[in-house]
Amino acid sequence: MNRRFDAPGAAETARAIAEGRTTSEAAVDACLARIAEREETVRAWAFLDPDLALAQARARDEAATPAGPLHGVPVGIKDIFDTADMPTEMGSPIYAGYRPAADAAAVAILREAGAVILGKTVTAEFAGTHPGSTTNPHDPARTPGGSSQGSAAGVADFMVPVALGTQTGGSVLRPSSYCGIVGFKPGFGTFNRAGIKFAAESLDTIGLHARNLEDAALVRDVLTGRTPDGIAPLPGPPGIGVCRTHLWHLAEPETVAAVEDASDVLGRAGAAVDEVTLPAAFEALTDARRAINDYERARAMAHEWRTDRERLSPAMRKTVASGLAVPYADYRRALALTEDCRRLLDGLFGDRDALLAPAVDGEAPPGLDYAGDPAFQALWTMLHVPAITIPTHRGPNGMPVGIQLVARRGADDRLLSVAEWVWARCCI
Amino acid sequence: MNRRFDAPGAAETARAIAEGRTTSEAAVDACLARIAEREETVRAWAFLDPDLALAQARARDEAATPAGPLHGVPVGIKDIFDTADMPTEMGSPIYAGYRPAADAAAVAILREAGAVILGKTVTAEFAGTHPGSTTNPHDPARTPGGSSQGSAAGVADFMVPVALGTQTGGSVLRPSSYCGIVGFKPGFGTFNRAGIKFAAESLDTIGLHARNLEDAALVRDVLTGRTPDGIAPLPGPPGIGVCRTHLWHLAEPETVAAVEDASDVLGRAGAAVDEVTLPAAFEALTDARRAINDYERARAMAHEWRTDRERLSPAMRKTVASGLAVPYADYRRALALTEDCRRLLDGLFGDRDALLAPAVDGEAPPGLDYAGDPAFQALWTMLHVPAITIPTHRGPNGMPVGIQLVARRGADDRLLSVAEWVWARCCI
Repeated sequence: MNRRFDAPGAAETARAIAEGRTTSEAAVDACLARIAEREETVRAWAFLDPDLALAQARARDEAATPAGPLHGVPVGIKDIFDTADMPTEMGSPIYAGYRPAADAAAVAILREAGAVILGKTVTAEFAGTHPGSTTNPHDPARTPGGSSQGSAAGVADFMVPVALGTQTGGSVLRPSSYCGIVGFKPGFGTFNRAGIKFAAESLDTIGLHARNLEDAALVRDVLTGRTPDGIAPLPGPPGIGVCRTHLWHLAEPETVAAVEDASDVLGRAGAAVDEVTLPAAFEALTDARRAINDYERARAMAHEWRTDRERLSPAMRKTVASGLAVPYADYRRALALTEDCRRLLDGLFGDRDALLAPAVDGEAPPGLDYAGDPAFQALWTMLHVPAITIPTHRGPNGMPVGIQLVARRGADDRLLSVAEWVWARCCI
Repeated sequence: MNRRFDAPGAAETARAIAEGRTTSEAAVDACLARIAEREETVRAWAFLDPDLALAQARARDEAATPAGPLHGVPVGIKDIFDTADMPTEMGSPIYAGYRPAADAAAVAILREAGAVILGKTVTAEFAGTHPGSTTNPHDPARTPGGSSQGSAAGVADFMVPVALGTQTGGSVLRPSSYCGIVGFKPGFGTFNRAGIKFAAESLDTIGLHARNLEDAALVRDVLTGRTPDGIAPLPGPPGIGVCRTHLWHLAEPETVAAVEDASDVLGRAGAAVDEVTLPAAFEALTDARRAINDYERARAMAHEWRTDRERLSPAMRKTVASGLAVPYADYRRALALTEDCRRLLDGLFGDRDALLAPAVDGEAPPGLDYAGDPAFQALWTMLHVPAITIPTHRGPNGMPVGIQLVARRGADDRLLSVAEWVWARCCI
């Protein structure tokens, strides 16, 4: 990646269009030019029709009044969201060329706010573990992570300012961290999921890939129907609990260094930093996640499993078979244990504004067949709390390594404020 | 309705097919004959292709081994579930003739278990309040209730032994009660929702219409991947809390009589019957429901609202406009209040096995334009608990009036056991 390349974000593009400093067509043109230059290497797009994108942009430019806060701004959409005017292939040959009848709710809401749907981004097969073709913009020999790999790589490579992803385990935060951008998974249930392909319904969460926090907050506000008003500054230094988690042994030296460095820097900057240890009950979440994910995945894939099993990847077939073998009682126990941990966690925050946790095990691993370990992201997805990664550090190979911040359920606003405070002080 | 007409249920049909006493073709033929006789009056079916149904049945009869516990059994599907081989019109002209690419998860699971998908049943527009054409089998001048009106009326009229519905407010239990059948809404999240049209995602629950509890348990077991083993008998008389709720003033005399009679009969039969009063906090659930339902509905309908507003019913336009006007903070407050009530309710059950509550305001009202008041069902849908109605009583016009039984979250099995105990003792 050309590290010196830069491009305006979503909020800046919206302002420039509103103030007549640029047009939607020019913004889309700039994205298309970047894609033309880089797509052969990055392979972030499952579908991109420049004419269709430009036609949307021109319609925005010709409108008498702005449609909304994203008027004219290009957005990328993970290819498991239904789109009425573009194929929705979900990373699977089963859906090659498939055109849904309607936009997913999130896509329709973005359009209503004026966004230009630039194209569909590469996803792992059905947002699972079998990766698509995308490479890491920082090193094409390395994975960008998954499953929202085209969204993360496209945003990181300046092909599009923001993109939608989904996270069931670690599918928004991990690729964001591997690609060196912001990945924001709001609290469970925040963005309407109508029209997305479910993986595990009790965990699937729509999230955002962006290059700055202002853009994440802007799209968040649009998708929830709020009038965008930026991120409220914290009244003072936050209280931050460092939570290495019981998975700490999985952290590579670069992740250990990132968390320790962030903890030191934030403490010196005035944050009330202490340590938070998760109760032993949380260790069972790893097994509970497998039971819940596989059980629910097997049901969500019932049609494809019945009618087109041989065109599922071996990895997906294994997950479905595993899920069909999970006894219902085990599934219910896993749900109950997880719900207990959610309530425990509510109480653990105390006066703290956020927890600082590892975002990933380390740098993006070499190769494209394995999209990395979701353990450090999935723990918090299970707990339904809002979580964000910001690209604060680098590893021994110069690849990005993010940190993760997590807030209590319902504290999405506070999480964004804390992330802004932290990123201003703790940054590569 | 010919009150003397009878037809085997799902479990009995499955047994008869398995034992060679009948065939799937004969079972489907019997359904088709009943439909041919009665459909002009009842209008329960949005799509029915006798040849397609019979072809499925013959394929079941020709199979060397049974596909599963529902081998050859006809099932009706509310027309908001995607079906790959039948239109999915959702009660809206917007989707006239629409054919999805895949079956909804629940439909695929039923097929995998051997079911014959008989056809699609009439739904209120997008499972909302604008009703379809269905009449009440007990009196064609009266509503069957909604929104799962074709499913409830079709099962009540012996056109099909069981059918899928969905409940966001009262869409499974109310039409079941109005039509005099069993309506079972399991705990939130029990049946996989992939491939249904969402109304309000945090409330939408797939449920079942049946004429007996064994059938409801059988289909429940299939959809959750359990080996069907019937309903466990209670070890002794249950503890039942009579919960008239703060909505008691809405109960017509026939509902008051049904609850009081059931309470007396059950007490005399040995149940430990006492009274349960919901804390005052629950009174706010009525307003919270409006905020949650309308806010989420507006997002789920974003595509149709953007592209086809004039073909939405006035009622749906009103709901979406209302939902777009709900401030995000109000929506979050409504969610938080509802979650508080869920936790409060967990504690309120104490040693009781179930609550006895009004199922409906009274008999099905005259006319087809208004599908009745969902208040008595929606209260429990909000609380995510399993709920069931059984057809125990009749009103002054001879129309069915059910009672409702509700169990704590996670106690779906116990609820079915209690319902069986109650229905054996408390019955018209």
